[in-house]
Amino acid sequence: MSEEYTKRLWLEEDLADDLKWSMMVKNVMFSGKSKFQEVDLIHTGPFGKTLFLDGKVQSSEVDEWVYHELLVHPAMVMHPNPKSVFICGGGEGATAREVLRHKSVEKLVMVDIDKVVCDFCHEHLEVNKSAFESPRLELINDDARAQLEAYPGKFDVIIGDLADPLEGGPCYQLYTQDFYQNVVLKKLNPGGIFITQSGPAGILSCTEVFTAINCTLRSVFPRVLPYTQHMPVYCDVWGWNMALTDPKQAEISPEEMDRRLAARVEGEMRFLDGATFEGLRALNKHLRGCLAGETCIYTADTARFIHGSV
Amino acid sequence: MSEEYTKRLWLEEDLADDLKWSMMVKNVMFSGKSKFQEVDLIHTGPFGKTLFLDGKVQSSEVDEWVYHELLVHPAMVMHPNPKSVFICGGGEGATAREVLRHKSVEKLVMVDIDKVVCDFCHEHLEVNKSAFESPRLELINDDARAQLEAYPGKFDVIIGDLADPLEGGPCYQLYTQDFYQNVVLKKLNPGGIFITQSGPAGILSCTEVFTAINCTLRSVFPRVLPYTQHMPVYCDVWGWNMALTDPKQAEISPEEMDRRLAARVEGEMRFLDGATFEGLRALNKHLRGCLAGETCIYTADTARFIHGSV
Amino acid sequence: MSEEYTKRLWLEEDLADDLKWSMMVKNVMFSGKSKFQEVDLIHTGPFGKTLFLDGKVQSSEVDEWVYHELLVHPAMVMHPNPKSVFICGGGEGATAREVLRHKSVEKLVMVDIDKVVCDFCHEHLEVNKSAFESPRLELINDDARAQLEAYPGKFDVIIGDLADPLEGGPCYQLYTQDFYQNVVLKKLNPGGIFITQSGPAGILSCTEVFTAINCTLRSVFPRVLPYTQHMPVYCDVWGWNMALTDPKQAEISPEEMDRRLAARVEGEMRFLDGATFEGLRALNKHLRGCLAGETCIYTADTARFIHGSV
Amino acid sequence: MSEEYTKRLWLEEDLADDLKWSMMVKNVMFSGKSKFQEVDLIHTGPFGKTLFLDGKVQSSEVDEWVYHELLVHPAMVMHPNPKSVFICGGGEGATAREVLRHKSVEKLVMVDIDKVVCDFCHEHLEVNKSAFESPRLELINDDARAQLEAYPGKFDVIIGDLADPLEGGPCYQLYTQDFYQNVVLKKLNPGGIFITQSGPAGILSCTEVFTAINCTLRSVFPRVLPYTQHMPVYCDVWGWNMALTDPKQAEISPEEMDRRLAARVEGEMRFLDGATFEGLRALNKHLRGCLAGETCIYTADTARFIHGSV
Repeated sequence: MSEEYTKRLWLEEDLADDLKWSMMVKNVMFSGKSKFQEVDLIHTGPFGKTLFLDGKVQSSEVDEWVYHELLVHPAMVMHPNPKSVFICGGGEGATAREVLRHKSVEKLVMVDIDKVVCDFCHEHLEVNKSAFESPRLELINDDARAQLEAYPGKFDVIIGDLADPLEGGPCYQLYTQDFYQNVVLKKLNPGGIFITQSGPAGILSCTEVFTAINCTLRSVFPRVLPYTQHMPVYCDVWGWNMALTDPKQAEISPEEMDRRLAARVEGEMRFLDGATFEGLRALNKHLRGCLAGETCIYTADTARFIHGSV
Repeated sequence: MSEEYTKRLWLEEDLADDLKWSMMVKNVMFSGKSKFQEVDLIHTGPFGKTLFLDGKVQSSEVDEWVYHELLVHPAMVMHPNPKSVFICGGGEGATAREVLRHKSVEKLVMVDIDKVVCDFCHEHLEVNKSAFESPRLELINDDARAQLEAYPGKFDVIIGDLADPLEGGPCYQLYTQDFYQNVVLKKLNPGGIFITQSGPAGILSCTEVFTAINCTLRSVFPRVLPYTQHMPVYCDVWGWNMALTDPKQAEISPEEMDRRLAARVEGEMRFLDGATFEGLRALNKHLRGCLAGETCIYTADTARFIHGSV
Repeated sequence: MSEEYTKRLWLEEDLADDLKWSMMVKNVMFSGKSKFQEVDLIHTGPFGKTLFLDGKVQSSEVDEWVYHELLVHPAMVMHPNPKSVFICGGGEGATAREVLRHKSVEKLVMVDIDKVVCDFCHEHLEVNKSAFESPRLELINDDARAQLEAYPGKFDVIIGDLADPLEGGPCYQLYTQDFYQNVVLKKLNPGGIFITQSGPAGILSCTEVFTAINCTLRSVFPRVLPYTQHMPVYCDVWGWNMALTDPKQAEISPEEMDRRLAARVEGEMRFLDGATFEGLRALNKHLRGCLAGETCIYTADTARFIHGSV
Repeated sequence: MSEEYTKRLWLEEDLADDLKWSMMVKNVMFSGKSKFQEVDLIHTGPFGKTLFLDGKVQSSEVDEWVYHELLVHPAMVMHPNPKSVFICGGGEGATAREVLRHKSVEKLVMVDIDKVVCDFCHEHLEVNKSAFESPRLELINDDARAQLEAYPGKFDVIIGDLADPLEGGPCYQLYTQDFYQNVVLKKLNPGGIFITQSGPAGILSCTEVFTAINCTLRSVFPRVLPYTQHMPVYCDVWGWNMALTDPKQAEISPEEMDRRLAARVEGEMRFLDGATFEGLRALNKHLRGCLAGETCIYTADTARFIHGSV
């Protein structure tokens, strides 16, 4: 009987104006509400424990490790010796968790605007609990740009783990040329690396924001390295753009990446290794063409937005 | 008003027991029915003109070129000089279309069991029309195994473009060790190559059938080369397995692949080139682990099936 | 197989902000488009051939006879001898069909703004075909108010078969006190009767527009007779309000209604007879309370609207 | 933001094979599980606090009072002086609540098979709490037939408040001629009345079970009085059949019904009064025809079932 029943409660998410999907809900585990957004931890059939902000999927237990390994470790191992790291956003805690696996890291500053979300994830996401409690982590609940600008000193790696640049949303100004030029670049130590999640990067979706973020970074940094990977919970291929102040760092061999991962990181990677990354950074012809043809540079005026709104 | 309206007619497809999606339908263009299945060409919002067999997505105009370039050309260019090709299934006509772009091909035999589907696609899929009418194509509507066994002579390339191995479905016996050993291998010329679509190959889905097809082929051929790519219309990463009778052919450089594509194929590739394929064949660590851990060899008794049934 | 398939195409309709239903679509039979709206005839699973305007259900073959018998015959038989009838709206043709079953009717004027809808229904709704071709019918495609005002002479029965009074929609001014006072009342012969469909009248929905239409009519006519009946295709109880210039006409016995139906109308009623109507006009306590408590009189300024918009 | 969000969690219910609806879920308030079924109290958008058994709607706060007034009071007031009442089923507690409003009632025996459901409703349904705690109520958790047969003495009114007669379900034997003849009739005092909910009774649904229950009762009792009313939460008109051992009791005037309700019942009716009931028992021509044409008498062998299964 209960099988029959549990198929009746569904969470419906618009993937586009003309495409929606519904995931079976086993249990609404926890719900909270801040002045910015609603946060829910829902046990869904296809994705297990799944985190939602305002009803939009943030991450799920079945594939968050893929996303977070790819957001954190490529930049961290391309840097020769990352000691100081800054995370813009990242309130879920998983990005911090991955950063803190690097033994070289002495200081991690994480600035997420929503204290309620941070507390919620600290309390309810078991896998991220110890990260929130690490003495190396300084967690600040405020605007990421203001804090990054004001923070004393510079960083070896800066990570953008922000919501997509939705029109009218809180994060779009953190994807602009102005932010990259006048804040991020200035707060990186020599040889510093910036990495940001960059939205959907599939055949049909890559020009929504991914290519423009790439183009914007290329207008500021001497070397930008894009890579992509399918994320089941987002129903699409996802994209990341890494921006290097020292172009030579990008020319790491798979074998060297494996060596550095082994030497510097606690525990095993589940998804990433040198060979994996070699594949992810080898973009397909269609995507390379879209990147080459992109001319949009994000400014406050030209920002392009993906589907949805806050 | 019509915008409002067109959002009301939806085609719902089960992606799993606990996950379903709905694509907006603009127009049911054509429908037909054979003794095997229903065939429909439906103009959907997210995927344009989309072909369905028994209500299950087969291909769409927005991404079928990705699937068919990847099914056909890697094997064709790894072969030194493919003159004769055999397609198991392929009634849509797009696989034949891609094969016939190779100037070296003198004879293409395509065996699809469903004449109604072939006629339907010949009539309604404009992009495949000339392939159906090529003098180099011999189209037979019958059982692919029986025809392949009985066909005089051997082939340089054999392509499996069949429905997924659904329990009780018409195709599962065309994924077994027995078929590969006793039919496919025997009907390949020296240096011949077999390539088959191999079902979903995502992080969460790769062990449904992809790894077992790979394992089965490895029990028969000296070299099997798996590769994957996200297909939006299938809502997942898709997998292919190429089986080579001459292992050395797999060691083609990206530059050589580009040279052969340019020299042998009419027109431009949209998705594939040497660099693209280099990325697709570099599987991620998780998928490599799943392939390495797979022990299932498909026989009539052990066949594993993906979600769904006929 | 086809059973499986036909369950996959669904027409989704919002019943409220927080309630929607989906009916299985067997076949989109015909579609048309005027400058006012889209019109579609769709064969649905639960309701058979179903007419949609802008994707909103208008009527279905499984229950349109209930609606149209109740819209037309109670007023027609309460009138002693209806010779001239005017229909505001009614483009589907079924209201005209029922009116023309009355042998007393010499002239029927029907004014529907949308010629495309009238032509579409004339062509595709077999049961209404002869009504459209009756020599007693004068069909005018124009604004109903303008035509009613300008039409020479008066009418015995005026029927409002209009779309619901949606905000910004074309029909809301045809539900106002001004229209009833200054047009309808003046164009009725002595002893004339006005009847109008009046939107949903269920326990939860009756105060959306039903009670206000009743209240507005009561401000103009000496006697208003409301009645209701469940309509499956509207997923609710539906309401009608009959406004009489001669209050005594409302006091017809069930037996007298049966006699008049038998004497005046061609063919058998399927739903209505004297006993039926006795039940429908005996409103429940809750609904009577809502009617008694209603104070809203529709004017151009105070018009209240039901869920949805044009 | 939260408005946007709360529209995303939906409870989907099949209304038929080809019709389903989805109600927005605000909150899953409480869930329980017995050896018979799952029980959930869910706050839905359209229906407020709604009780589900195995994911099937049982009742909602916005209209349960309609159902329970109609199940209980017509039979109670047609009986001259009901002192002893037996409820088959009724675990929700609302039927008992309405019975206990009758000052004449000295003893109420309620037999519901599922103790978990009774305890759940006792705890979570505030409006029924005092009924569960009444000293006049004897609540037994067991099979209703066995308890009714074995219970010492007879009853003035017996009420069937059971789940629909689903194939293989626990209740279908409580709708058979054998049960009515050999148990119910024998356990009624002289002048006793039996009343049972009788499933959907709409134009399209009345022959599912409603007419057969009526026909079965007519084969046992000298007078059966059917009546119907739309229930929003069931998305249909609902039916009840009252079976009287003394046919004359059915001929109560609306005024007498009002007098008895006023004299015997504590508090006000919200839905029912004499005029209301006069309307509900005046069935429409179509329904009367279906009742007249029904020949099916429920026995263990011929039981007909409505859509759905346990």
